[in-house]
Amino acid sequence: MKNSIGTSVILTLAGESHGEAIVAVLDGIAPGIPVNEAFIAEQLAKRRPQGPTDTARREPDDYRIVSGVFNGCTTGAPLTIVIPNVNVRSADYEATHTLARPSHADYTAHVKYGGFEDWRGGGHFSGRITAGIVAAGAIAIDALSRKGIKIGTHILECAGVADAPFEAANPEALGAQLDSIAKLDFPVLSEVREAMEARILEAKADGDSVGGIIQTAVCGLPAGVGEPWFSSIEGELANAIFSIGGIKGVEFGSGFALAGMKGSEANDSFCIEGGEVRTRSNHNGGVNGGISNGMPLIFNAAVKPTPSIAKSQDTIDMDGCNEAVLELKGRHDPAIIRRICIVVSSLTAIVLCDQLALRYGTDWLR
Amino acid sequence: MKNSIGTSVILTLAGESHGEAIVAVLDGIAPGIPVNEAFIAEQLAKRRPQGPTDTARREPDDYRIVSGVFNGCTTGAPLTIVIPNVNVRSADYEATHTLARPSHADYTAHVKYGGFEDWRGGGHFSGRITAGIVAAGAIAIDALSRKGIKIGTHILECAGVADAPFEAANPEALGAQLDSIAKLDFPVLSEVREAMEARILEAKADGDSVGGIIQTAVCGLPAGVGEPWFSSIEGELANAIFSIGGIKGVEFGSGFALAGMKGSEANDSFCIEGGEVRTRSNHNGGVNGGISNGMPLIFNAAVKPTPSIAKSQDTIDMDGCNEAVLELKGRHDPAIIRRICIVVSSLTAIVLCDQLALRYGTDWLR
Amino acid sequence: MKNSIGTSVILTLAGESHGEAIVAVLDGIAPGIPVNEAFIAEQLAKRRPQGPTDTARREPDDYRIVSGVFNGCTTGAPLTIVIPNVNVRSADYEATHTLARPSHADYTAHVKYGGFEDWRGGGHFSGRITAGIVAAGAIAIDALSRKGIKIGTHILECAGVADAPFEAANPEALGAQLDSIAKLDFPVLSEVREAMEARILEAKADGDSVGGIIQTAVCGLPAGVGEPWFSSIEGELANAIFSIGGIKGVEFGSGFALAGMKGSEANDSFCIEGGEVRTRSNHNGGVNGGISNGMPLIFNAAVKPTPSIAKSQDTIDMDGCNEAVLELKGRHDPAIIRRICIVVSSLTAIVLCDQLALRYGTDWLR
Amino acid sequence: MKNSIGTSVILTLAGESHGEAIVAVLDGIAPGIPVNEAFIAEQLAKRRPQGPTDTARREPDDYRIVSGVFNGCTTGAPLTIVIPNVNVRSADYEATHTLARPSHADYTAHVKYGGFEDWRGGGHFSGRITAGIVAAGAIAIDALSRKGIKIGTHILECAGVADAPFEAANPEALGAQLDSIAKLDFPVLSEVREAMEARILEAKADGDSVGGIIQTAVCGLPAGVGEPWFSSIEGELANAIFSIGGIKGVEFGSGFALAGMKGSEANDSFCIEGGEVRTRSNHNGGVNGGISNGMPLIFNAAVKPTPSIAKSQDTIDMDGCNEAVLELKGRHDPAIIRRICIVVSSLTAIVLCDQLALRYGTDWLR
Repeated sequence: MKNSIGTSVILTLAGESHGEAIVAVLDGIAPGIPVNEAFIAEQLAKRRPQGPTDTARREPDDYRIVSGVFNGCTTGAPLTIVIPNVNVRSADYEATHTLARPSHADYTAHVKYGGFEDWRGGGHFSGRITAGIVAAGAIAIDALSRKGIKIGTHILECAGVADAPFEAANPEALGAQLDSIAKLDFPVLSEVREAMEARILEAKADGDSVGGIIQTAVCGLPAGVGEPWFSSIEGELANAIFSIGGIKGVEFGSGFALAGMKGSEANDSFCIEGGEVRTRSNHNGGVNGGISNGMPLIFNAAVKPTPSIAKSQDTIDMDGCNEAVLELKGRHDPAIIRRICIVVSSLTAIVLCDQLALRYGTDWLR
Repeated sequence: MKNSIGTSVILTLAGESHGEAIVAVLDGIAPGIPVNEAFIAEQLAKRRPQGPTDTARREPDDYRIVSGVFNGCTTGAPLTIVIPNVNVRSADYEATHTLARPSHADYTAHVKYGGFEDWRGGGHFSGRITAGIVAAGAIAIDALSRKGIKIGTHILECAGVADAPFEAANPEALGAQLDSIAKLDFPVLSEVREAMEARILEAKADGDSVGGIIQTAVCGLPAGVGEPWFSSIEGELANAIFSIGGIKGVEFGSGFALAGMKGSEANDSFCIEGGEVRTRSNHNGGVNGGISNGMPLIFNAAVKPTPSIAKSQDTIDMDGCNEAVLELKGRHDPAIIRRICIVVSSLTAIVLCDQLALRYGTDWLR
Repeated sequence: MKNSIGTSVILTLAGESHGEAIVAVLDGIAPGIPVNEAFIAEQLAKRRPQGPTDTARREPDDYRIVSGVFNGCTTGAPLTIVIPNVNVRSADYEATHTLARPSHADYTAHVKYGGFEDWRGGGHFSGRITAGIVAAGAIAIDALSRKGIKIGTHILECAGVADAPFEAANPEALGAQLDSIAKLDFPVLSEVREAMEARILEAKADGDSVGGIIQTAVCGLPAGVGEPWFSSIEGELANAIFSIGGIKGVEFGSGFALAGMKGSEANDSFCIEGGEVRTRSNHNGGVNGGISNGMPLIFNAAVKPTPSIAKSQDTIDMDGCNEAVLELKGRHDPAIIRRICIVVSSLTAIVLCDQLALRYGTDWLR
Repeated sequence: MKNSIGTSVILTLAGESHGEAIVAVLDGIAPGIPVNEAFIAEQLAKRRPQGPTDTARREPDDYRIVSGVFNGCTTGAPLTIVIPNVNVRSADYEATHTLARPSHADYTAHVKYGGFEDWRGGGHFSGRITAGIVAAGAIAIDALSRKGIKIGTHILECAGVADAPFEAANPEALGAQLDSIAKLDFPVLSEVREAMEARILEAKADGDSVGGIIQTAVCGLPAGVGEPWFSSIEGELANAIFSIGGIKGVEFGSGFALAGMKGSEANDSFCIEGGEVRTRSNHNGGVNGGISNGMPLIFNAAVKPTPSIAKSQDTIDMDGCNEAVLELKGRHDPAIIRRICIVVSSLTAIVLCDQLALRYGTDWLR
């Protein structure tokens, strides 16, 4: 499979930034799940550019569900979401499209697709495609929440400003944190929004961009989900998350920090709390041997600074294969980290729906 | 798929630590590839425990290829490698097997497999299974090298001691580095072996263990390999690498360090060098938009400290679901980072063989 | 995967008979393939109901390609075709939708989807979905024809009237046959159209329906495509073809007739003709050991009589689980065999594009 | 996937006719299933050549389970079965191996694998590989029988001699038929063994071979299993069955005979019997719209006459690409139809285990 992910619950993505529409097909989702259109709209709004820290391209995201829903519920047949593109300005790309934007997919797409790729606005590589993930993910997030599974992502660090981390070893406290960020369009746990936004605007003023780290948590995932080799919870999620443009690292639990610990510090002791098996710490992010252990699933992802910057850059002209200088036009995000949070939560929800359906059957989610 | 990875070139792993044998089936590898048995043995030797920094379990790894090779070459039919287990001491596990070893897969396996799992020596979750990866990977590494593709992994950091990094933006210098570590059984680029081993032995003496970071590089991979969504080079490799016990983080290029950079620092400018498209820096680790760009592929993986430690630990008894104290017996590695290097290189080679076969056809590798 | 087929070239189908639209996503098709919109329209016309032998539902099939095509060529990114439904009359189904139509999917859908299925016009099980196959298949058929591969299907038998068979062992004569039926909307090789139509109308007048056998041929497929076990050319095609409603049998070459032959009659002797390896007969339908042998690929499929008939039928009411009598309304085909021919050719083309891409790489088809 | 089948329960086959061993890996089978070694041996005996109607090659099939079983039960980890080859006589093939045996896979293997294929005894294409299917299938058949699902295959027709058919529309009578053939090594429902054997021996005496039709039935399969498009019960089974060498046709229920029926004859009316939904006839073989309807699953497969015959045949020499005459040596079956019955039942069981695990979860089978 190429632009599809999943085994029992499968998401397929199609569409280009400046094409007619973004298309997401969510197949295998259990029948009988109420489709909450208001919630989908709300989730799409979180991804949508909104203020001066985001791109000036404003899309209404007037999605339509064209299959798979009947009488307000999923039918079990593939559910197709179409999100038309309306606010496109391809002229921005006309002049420079043979110049490979550094750290973008222009050059690799050119090699892979032999020059036939749709280069307008990044084409099929554009972050715009993630609108399809968010719309499909809204249905998954909503369905999981009815089964007691909560998912959320916040900005752990942006442009050097750090947020408080999730309470990884305390499911109750974490649950409250997830509730608190669920409604935020700038998802942070502590009072860091202003500082982060200031740094983003600073970079923007400078014709530059910034990155950061996001942190995702899942509460309520049963123990015993995942496979030992090649379909580990970590591997399945990492595969999904690395598809999102700009993600260059994924770590579970304490991740790279574990490299500097001793085993006696890093090991998560088991204990019994309220009749439940728990671990006292959660350095493993809720996963042992590729399988969920019932503690919160926790992972971080590194978001590189947006590669589209106003500063002039050295590059090549892909046609003549000459060196060239790029002065970028178009409407770009000085930081995509805020918008990427909901994308990662959405994709996480879809991957977990798949894993749960494989484990417990196709109707479990209903 | 569960214990299998790949689409056109597929690796399937079976076997348990104390079972009869480890089995690896490598399917879809091009016909006509010479099978270099001496090289396979050499690669297995790199994974094998050897000195006081490794476990005392010593396996001869007298593997047998029981299918898929004829007259010294691959036939194109599935190639099966069987590696018998001979040096097993299950008695070490008898007494304590109902006590979940913290940060191991005992508890998650118990929940997933309902108590039917083979708990001897970690069963199917054991690092012993990686012998199958190394044997199959040796064939892949050897075949790729004939196509000009080199792969290697070194210990970038262990127990606080740092090695020099790969020359990520300089393919020629990197090629020399890869050659230099190819024969090493303790793969480091600078004079850090003694310091690292000292720290490992210190931890061992203390009944403890250490972790670290490994760095993998691939030279000679053509541009244009990988898919934009859900089969990105990064996602496919991460999925594979996260299956290896003890890996808790994967980052490409500058990875998490990108989170603190500006776009103008992080972007890799394109240039023409010797008629070839290159980038001046390589913060993206050779991948843009999920697709290889022709520069060296670079990634790091975080290795947590081995969870098997001699110190006593709090845990639970899975039978009665009571709290308990674990005093671990058995033969364990105070650090697995040295041995994991060859496993990661091997798995990387198999994933790339798959991607290359998908891109260029099943016979490309011949 | 569920409503998707293929490994390197993948078709995903979504939509319901009376929903907003039929959606087909064709992923992995090589970039740079000219998209011939007139040919797509022409192929859709062959599937479209047209005279008194077909259903009275008339859909314009005003499809739109909403992704994956740029400047008239495929881009290599997923190609999405949306075909709106306009001529729906769901009221026909309102009254009787709890009565399971015999030999339809109503009851099995009800059990599988728990009553949440879209029952209007057969929902996702409707033959209407095959419009997506034909539109996507037109691109595949057109691309294959540029590589010298021709595909066609004719009605071998309908309601007891037999057509002449394909010249299975004579590639040149077969090529001419394929050319001759390529433009026909009632694809037969001999003068049997009138007789077949007369029998269909007879059945219709009787409130009944008829079935038949269709025969598909592929000329120009290279030898060496397919896999020995579980991805044989026969298995891959059969899996695809059995998805089409009404197909209850698939046989390759002489198929079931081989059961009554001796080995000496059934074996296809090899010979050299014009420097090419051929077989003197073609009882194996161009496939040996699951792999194409370079001779024409030939297979037949049994089409059952359309289950929607006007005659009253015994059945059950799925709500109360009572026995009931069904008097069917709605607009139905007394025979779907004519319309199914183009569907089978289209699906065959997509399966072969996938097999060829796996064998020779993603760009081979360009 | 290539030599693997399944999504949640996956069978992988490796090995060659004259290689060291046949290997079958059965992954994803539920943990806790008792492994009945006597039953496995019994099933293997049914596939084994035995009298003058079979090949003279006699293999003891002393299989070993080298992973995935612990304390007599499946563990949930991949279960590996190794069946050594002992009675090989490769010399029979030395002299003629560049002559393509007509209707065998020699030529297609040669093209596909470029001359690197193991040609001894048909290599990976040999019917010998099916020993792995039967051993793995024995575990699946045994597990399904504990869930009330019975599977069996008989010879419906051989060399012109017809057996009585299964009672497709009468689950109780069918159950008794399945019980009656379960122990037979020559599985027929009526007194036709002698007549069939006589015809087989006649053909053998003549240096020739015969084929036939086999019929498979499954009792007790729940309604609602399968998918509408591309994972229909029919398609999944056909894909599996067509992998078996010699199968050239698969039909469900009345199959090709439906082509000559009217809708009013072919439709299976629903009724309520003993509180259960049933159909009065079973022309659809228990499948509507690709999904099981709760009635017996019934399908036939056409077995071509064994291509290895003693009569001299025209063919080509693959080395020089010259025409040649083949005088075949070696030990061959004048008919494989008896031996193929258990193979088809075994593969059916594995496919159904997969479908049931997908539908109801990985533990359903326990």
